Amino acid sequence: MRVPNARTTEDVACLKGHAGDVWAVGFSADGRTLASGDGDWHRPGDVRLWNTADWTERAALRHTGEVLALAFDPTRPRLAAGSWDKPVKVWTLPR
Amino acid sequence: MRVPNARTTEDVACLKGHAGDVWAVGFSADGRTLASGDGDWHRPGDVRLWNTADWTERAALRHTGEVLALAFDPTRPRLAAGSWDKPVKVWTLPR
Amino acid sequence: MRVPNARTTEDVACLKGHAGDVWAVGFSADGRTLASGDGDWHRPGDVRLWNTADWTERAALRHTGEVLALAFDPTRPRLAAGSWDKPVKVWTLPR
Amino acid sequence: MRVPNARTTEDVACLKGHAGDVWAVGFSADGRTLASGDGDWHRPGDVRLWNTADWTERAALRHTGEVLALAFDPTRPRLAAGSWDKPVKVWTLPR
Repeated sequence: MRVPNARTTEDVACLKGHAGDVWAVGFSADGRTLASGDGDWHRPGDVRLWNTADWTERAALRHTGEVLALAFDPTRPRLAAGSWDKPVKVWTLPR
Repeated sequence: MRVPNARTTEDVACLKGHAGDVWAVGFSADGRTLASGDGDWHRPGDVRLWNTADWTERAALRHTGEVLALAFDPTRPRLAAGSWDKPVKVWTLPR
Repeated sequence: MRVPNARTTEDVACLKGHAGDVWAVGFSADGRTLASGDGDWHRPGDVRLWNTADWTERAALRHTGEVLALAFDPTRPRLAAGSWDKPVKVWTLPR
Repeated sequence: MRVPNARTTEDVACLKGHAGDVWAVGFSADGRTLASGDGDWHRPGDVRLWNTADWTERAALRHTGEVLALAFDPTRPRLAAGSWDKPVKVWTLPR
């Protein structure tokens, strides 16, 4: 079953900025933004937004707890994140 | 690689209502509903539905265990959730 | 922010069959099948397929370990699942 | 509620190659690639790409930590993965 392909897959970016483990990642519906959320024990987490055209960081969004889950709205440029805390945060994306 | 963008991203809502940690979030296919599921040790969890037009809470749905995963049907307004318990619950969404 | 809607959301189904906790749920692209995967410590898990027309169980698929993640192919009726074990399993769906 | 269907669902593949538990799986938007990510305690994880036409392994991509989450860009053949480490990795897919 395992027949490795000789062609390697290009590692296009190694995005640095998170100060904690990354539990959730997702692309926006238009593919222009990648979101990632981090969480470490007993520390508020961040959601970071990355511009997929040049992989620069577009924003660092502070949550109230460690980020466990995130989701993009499939119809609009906005993002929700749940965390190891009770509030759910929602952000709109810069264009 | 890290070039923070000066434009900050607007925090449009901080949705309060969950009594436990939020392990799962998702938008419905039409973008009109955000669902979030919570779970705390040894307590049944809730799935909460939020109206994305004004971020009011539309419903609080009780599960049998801590909610670990949720998914929207991509074709119809309904939602399934799995939990730290055996039954899978399915709800239809109010319009 | 919290303004509960008086209209409650109908609980259409409480699907029973899993013998373990349900860590992953998902709908197929056509909305005709709901999949759920369970996992308990040191026991192989099942992926169960549910007919969303009448919520009957269509199949119980045995994995090699506790099911942690599942995904439907967006283009074809097939499903993959990863587990607390090394092999990834793929199934085609009955029509 | 439980009415097992007599027709069993075909197990089309049992993909071997991961050296750790598989926490995340996903199909690309075109259905031609399945990705899976593994993670074991204190060991860098791999993301593996599988050709869904014949289930051969197309690539094994090394991450810096145990892979916890992965997501495909819905608009382009590329993939992001977060791990039990801070960097987020992005790869383009071979065609």
